[in-house]
Amino acid sequence: MKNFTSVDDIQDLKGLVALAKAVKAAPYANQQLGKNKTLGLLFFNPSLRTRLSTQKAALNLGMHPIVMNLNTEGWTLEFEDGVVMDGAASEHIKEAAQVVSQYCDVIAIRSFPTLTDKEKDEEEYVISAFKKYASVPVISLEGSTEHPLQAVADALTIEEFKTKERPKVVLTWAPHPKALPHAVPNSFVKVMKKADVDFIITHPEGYELNPEFTAGVTITHNQDEAFKDADFIYAKNWSSYIDYGKITSKDPSWTVTPEKMALTDNGKFMHCLPVRRNMIVADAVLDSDSSIVIPQSNNRTWSAQAILTKILENAE
Amino acid sequence: MKNFTSVDDIQDLKGLVALAKAVKAAPYANQQLGKNKTLGLLFFNPSLRTRLSTQKAALNLGMHPIVMNLNTEGWTLEFEDGVVMDGAASEHIKEAAQVVSQYCDVIAIRSFPTLTDKEKDEEEYVISAFKKYASVPVISLEGSTEHPLQAVADALTIEEFKTKERPKVVLTWAPHPKALPHAVPNSFVKVMKKADVDFIITHPEGYELNPEFTAGVTITHNQDEAFKDADFIYAKNWSSYIDYGKITSKDPSWTVTPEKMALTDNGKFMHCLPVRRNMIVADAVLDSDSSIVIPQSNNRTWSAQAILTKILENAE
Amino acid sequence: MKNFTSVDDIQDLKGLVALAKAVKAAPYANQQLGKNKTLGLLFFNPSLRTRLSTQKAALNLGMHPIVMNLNTEGWTLEFEDGVVMDGAASEHIKEAAQVVSQYCDVIAIRSFPTLTDKEKDEEEYVISAFKKYASVPVISLEGSTEHPLQAVADALTIEEFKTKERPKVVLTWAPHPKALPHAVPNSFVKVMKKADVDFIITHPEGYELNPEFTAGVTITHNQDEAFKDADFIYAKNWSSYIDYGKITSKDPSWTVTPEKMALTDNGKFMHCLPVRRNMIVADAVLDSDSSIVIPQSNNRTWSAQAILTKILENAE
Repeated sequence: MKNFTSVDDIQDLKGLVALAKAVKAAPYANQQLGKNKTLGLLFFNPSLRTRLSTQKAALNLGMHPIVMNLNTEGWTLEFEDGVVMDGAASEHIKEAAQVVSQYCDVIAIRSFPTLTDKEKDEEEYVISAFKKYASVPVISLEGSTEHPLQAVADALTIEEFKTKERPKVVLTWAPHPKALPHAVPNSFVKVMKKADVDFIITHPEGYELNPEFTAGVTITHNQDEAFKDADFIYAKNWSSYIDYGKITSKDPSWTVTPEKMALTDNGKFMHCLPVRRNMIVADAVLDSDSSIVIPQSNNRTWSAQAILTKILENAE
Repeated sequence: MKNFTSVDDIQDLKGLVALAKAVKAAPYANQQLGKNKTLGLLFFNPSLRTRLSTQKAALNLGMHPIVMNLNTEGWTLEFEDGVVMDGAASEHIKEAAQVVSQYCDVIAIRSFPTLTDKEKDEEEYVISAFKKYASVPVISLEGSTEHPLQAVADALTIEEFKTKERPKVVLTWAPHPKALPHAVPNSFVKVMKKADVDFIITHPEGYELNPEFTAGVTITHNQDEAFKDADFIYAKNWSSYIDYGKITSKDPSWTVTPEKMALTDNGKFMHCLPVRRNMIVADAVLDSDSSIVIPQSNNRTWSAQAILTKILENAE
Repeated sequence: MKNFTSVDDIQDLKGLVALAKAVKAAPYANQQLGKNKTLGLLFFNPSLRTRLSTQKAALNLGMHPIVMNLNTEGWTLEFEDGVVMDGAASEHIKEAAQVVSQYCDVIAIRSFPTLTDKEKDEEEYVISAFKKYASVPVISLEGSTEHPLQAVADALTIEEFKTKERPKVVLTWAPHPKALPHAVPNSFVKVMKKADVDFIITHPEGYELNPEFTAGVTITHNQDEAFKDADFIYAKNWSSYIDYGKITSKDPSWTVTPEKMALTDNGKFMHCLPVRRNMIVADAVLDSDSSIVIPQSNNRTWSAQAILTKILENAE
């Protein structure tokens, strides 16, 4: 594996999930692999789970994580080609990406979307530029359109908690006070399409995700119908894709409640976190045994460690 | 030891100080203890000594410290139960504390008081919430009412510098331009009550600390009287507790001067630092041989290392 | 070597460059040297290369780097002696430097100039204060008048890329939209005076560097003349020294272009980075084979590692 910035980079999901399970069972078994290697974690945006779990994964492999908040600790970057740099940006991504590649054996980047400039966001202009100019592997810590490390953790969690060979998995939109990115739902859709599950998406009208990603997936506007006999409910808010970055509904009837969970077949509740209580999901669901959000967050470490393992092994 | 968030968590002060001396004498003797373990240091507030010394202590034990500034690098946290999270807070402490517990073997937190909401401060609402929801041990890096790592360093320092079996120790209030917390004086009072010392507190009227903590301790408003024949002068400013968080005096006659130190029995000057020169204490005292603030700050490492040792040993 | 805060601290440039080459050839050969030692990296200003390369260098030597942004994560420092500290500053540099020395075996500091207070800048008041009060070695990560780690990397780069025994090296001013410090050109001038090169400086009138540093060096206002038959073109902007900190020219005719590079003897283009494209240098130069800015930035690691090696060896 050269880079890991999209679920599309996964050739063999089953194998990757098996690897994640293996590193979870023996986290410190491969510490020679990362010896004397550094992982640069570059953040343009806030992060809790990703920040900590990816450092933990690197440490487990014997790597040295080096964390940097690019906006506050570094220089403002220019991403356009051919410009006269007489403005706010001090450094071009061409140099920055090549330079960081001199000190870090792997570069990991978090860069959220603008939610105003659809074209720029869809180009993944930050992560794409790092991939273009870096001379070392690049990992997405959540870009503008995908959060693939989260998707691997999600697939592992479903694999661990499923009680049927082919479980029914529901991705449901839920209300939120702020406009949120599409990265998590996009990557979840992509990974579920690779998994051995019955997958269905439910959301209010106007909340269609990028049709390129959802092609072939059953979509319904009837949340109750979707929940029927489900094994996993994956709740997530996202802003409108059609009316790009806008909030077109905060309908509280989409909040996941115990009544709705009762429609499922003893379904498990999932969310990538952070989660807004009593907006996305009622306390009574999140505090019940049906919630698996904490083991799901734990799997972020093993997802990252599996990917780092793949990348370091190729690098050799 | 499960958590360490108050001097009350110390069962045996003499034993703990002896352990701190032992790790100071052989800092790297126990590096297997922390192998493959991470210490999460979560800061809501500025820190110099605590930030550096606790990292150093963790490294000495073979642990990996992971530092995070929660306010600027993470998500705004909600601490109230049952609320509809439609405001600024993105994540509930319930999830945050459980999630961090998935990546860190020990969690250490700095959270200063509001100095406006006495009830909230006295509940130690941040650290208490982490203790309630975390599944791993929690250490205070200074909370709203206590700074117990500082207190252990203080006890160690007095043990090292005392020239009498039962020295006289004075905690004196001193003036400061800003309203300061009570955490350091509270923890110092608590630890001195456990120590084999003659302990006396002196402050202007209206600067009484929480009477629950000072019960049984001699208190005088006559600073000169207090200093007489003292072996240790521990200076510190704090805001009013009765008139909560207010500055009711900046009386410069309370500044610790060479004249006042002359009243002592060759007394040593202590302060937790940072210290305002010529407000709390005159240059001539701080720059003299009687000042032991630098070795006192050095002991922060051994205090933290002793506590981490206790916690890691229990954890096994 | 006790401290490294100026090119003047280099006794034997040839030996130091040889050491840098040696650590580059075998980066992990000396990991016992830094075992159980911490390098404190204290930043008052932004940094990308220095931040990452110095951490990498420390890790290569088995040291633990501890990074801290003093402005945002610590306390405001007071540098004046004898003041009553009743203002914004919470801690005096006297204590801060001594305290950090308790936790870090080496202290490295970045502190940019004010560019308004020439006297203060020339005193290197921040780094000088750390040197005065710290009890451990101090390294400059770029001060107000020098950037010596950069200079060592520059000397190493010229050594590696030179094709003649005594190459011609040109330091040329180039335009920039903001007022920049003199630290990089000052240190480059100093190191070139120690190197076996033909050295010439070119800049517009009014951009004379501190004459104390440039004494004995050929200076011309004719950039074309300077470039003739040059082997290395080192471009850099700086603000006026005479009209201190002011921008007195943004003349675009000083931008380094392919036409100008054609005057050289197949000259190599150097810059410390970050570089403003199409202000300092045209894309066509920076994207050509004549640019060696990326290997130059790579040498920052080996420069730092050589200096840390020198310091740790003396420390023992």
